[in-house]
Amino acid sequence: MQSSFSEVEAISWTGEQLKLLDQQVLPNQIRYVLCSTAEDVALAIQQMVVRGAPAIGISAAYGVVLAATIGQTLNTLMTSLDMLSAARPTAVNLRWAIARMKALIDVHVTSSKEQQVTASLKEKLIAEAIAIHQEDITANKTMGQYGKQVILATLSGSHKIRVMTHCNTGALATGGYGTALGVIRALAEADELQQVWVNETRPWLQGARLTAWELSQEKIPFVLGVDSAAAYHMATNKIDWVIVGADRITANGDTANKIGTYSLAILARHHGCKFMVVAPSSTVDMELATGNEIEIECRGNHELVMLGEKNVAPENTVVSNPVFDVTPASLIDMIVTERGVIENPSLAKMQQLFC
Amino acid sequence: MQSSFSEVEAISWTGEQLKLLDQQVLPNQIRYVLCSTAEDVALAIQQMVVRGAPAIGISAAYGVVLAATIGQTLNTLMTSLDMLSAARPTAVNLRWAIARMKALIDVHVTSSKEQQVTASLKEKLIAEAIAIHQEDITANKTMGQYGKQVILATLSGSHKIRVMTHCNTGALATGGYGTALGVIRALAEADELQQVWVNETRPWLQGARLTAWELSQEKIPFVLGVDSAAAYHMATNKIDWVIVGADRITANGDTANKIGTYSLAILARHHGCKFMVVAPSSTVDMELATGNEIEIECRGNHELVMLGEKNVAPENTVVSNPVFDVTPASLIDMIVTERGVIENPSLAKMQQLFC
Repeated sequence: MQSSFSEVEAISWTGEQLKLLDQQVLPNQIRYVLCSTAEDVALAIQQMVVRGAPAIGISAAYGVVLAATIGQTLNTLMTSLDMLSAARPTAVNLRWAIARMKALIDVHVTSSKEQQVTASLKEKLIAEAIAIHQEDITANKTMGQYGKQVILATLSGSHKIRVMTHCNTGALATGGYGTALGVIRALAEADELQQVWVNETRPWLQGARLTAWELSQEKIPFVLGVDSAAAYHMATNKIDWVIVGADRITANGDTANKIGTYSLAILARHHGCKFMVVAPSSTVDMELATGNEIEIECRGNHELVMLGEKNVAPENTVVSNPVFDVTPASLIDMIVTERGVIENPSLAKMQQLFC
Repeated sequence: MQSSFSEVEAISWTGEQLKLLDQQVLPNQIRYVLCSTAEDVALAIQQMVVRGAPAIGISAAYGVVLAATIGQTLNTLMTSLDMLSAARPTAVNLRWAIARMKALIDVHVTSSKEQQVTASLKEKLIAEAIAIHQEDITANKTMGQYGKQVILATLSGSHKIRVMTHCNTGALATGGYGTALGVIRALAEADELQQVWVNETRPWLQGARLTAWELSQEKIPFVLGVDSAAAYHMATNKIDWVIVGADRITANGDTANKIGTYSLAILARHHGCKFMVVAPSSTVDMELATGNEIEIECRGNHELVMLGEKNVAPENTVVSNPVFDVTPASLIDMIVTERGVIENPSLAKMQQLFC
């Protein structure tokens, strides 16, 4: 029998190791992976033991701590930072977290003139990783409130809110509480939520395996559907808001997120449902002008050709397996971050909040 | 090792039994199910040993043959017809085929005044079932040519055609050759096809398991993707036509087809791809005014909660599993039938061809 949700923590720092809840085997098994080196962390990110843009960023920060051995040269440490950076390409939080850790190392070099990891630097790195983790939880709770307020302000209050979500953006994908799922949680806590439509989210089934599990543990009412039934559910049920997370938001508000998000945004617009992106400022990449510049990760054929241990398509099948897509800002009604809310995102509005 | 496609026949009449290629276990196993009674046929339809609107209709016609035992009262035979009719609700071809068999029985009653199945009636029923089967193959080949001509006429000829398809509409779903896949086959035979984008088609994976297998056997180039990547593929690749089959077309041109079709039609319109429905006249139901009147079959939770033998979502998960949706005529550019082609379908145009 599986543990209850409150007993599990997706990411925890033991003081010496990074302990990750293995999201590859949920919800059937509660298994933890212990990372003792930066290489362990990079592998865990690649293999999706840990996934979700904010969770990847936090894990990478702890990865930098594990890479920093007292006495080691800073050059060697930098190699580990590059290796961690390259673990997955699309979510900018990974590079954001590593840049933040690197800034600390740069300050250390400037102030101490040391060219190696000292005990004092190591301590600072640990404190910074923990800060990144804690700040993410705080950001999620703030976004939860902001998102809830926006939704309640735009609806008459005549009925409880009906939302659809995609992938997993909950405690498993973040430091805790969640981004899109944080807003949903906040609506539920305020007793303003009617029901969540959860798309199973092929090929990795984060919706079925992770979101359904989180919602079920929290007793938040939900209905699971295949991704391609989203339009049917929008047409036959009144869905008020589609709420999703993000892996990277560019300067104009274009948003990379789990494959299928772009499709949902088009379908939401067609059916008159509002579309909300919820992500911490660590997901914002003001260095990229538009979503066209975002590198989209494509994963292996086996995620479509195999179902468990069994072949479902001919072995030599050519597969296109992009795991993210880009939703243009023009299809997004609201971007919610811990710094504030942007309605109908544009470069000017993004610059006001993030420059 | 699996047999080659040309060695298999999805539906065949042995003279005494109906032999069905078991589509539940493709492409891993080539297994046949032998039906000796109408009950066997109804069960095979329910369990999706045979699926695809035209294939269901043909199988039901042979089911009527199996139900007709010489000497049996016609009342008893009618009970079997009702039982076969109720096997699946959405595809009208099932009821169309049974109505055609029933018309023959009615003529028999009127002309012979017999109230039981005679050897002569049995022979006529066999001939009629075989005719339904053969006519479907002929209709598919005609539609293949019509569809191909329409597509080549609307494109400049400067490039080969790039199409997307959903579910399986090939030899496995019909008497042979296929509806939407028949048009694709005709394009390939004319060397006018660049590539087919195949959506895997959750939850039953007809795209991955059946269409990929058929195309692979025929050496028609294709790429497999998850359903929710369709919008990404339309945005990043120039897809000229989305071509799908149908389970029921109402008097105004609204079309019920595999879940996800409605979504594809919205996405196609958004991206400027043309949208074509290919179905024999046996799929047209002029008795229903619009798609709102079509009964949409919802199947069990296990298709989403289980992946093979394994639970992927919590066992008590509430699932919404509609296996068809309705695409409004306004999103359909072309309906191709063996009687002719309808551009921008409307009641008047449908009546001209089908009344």
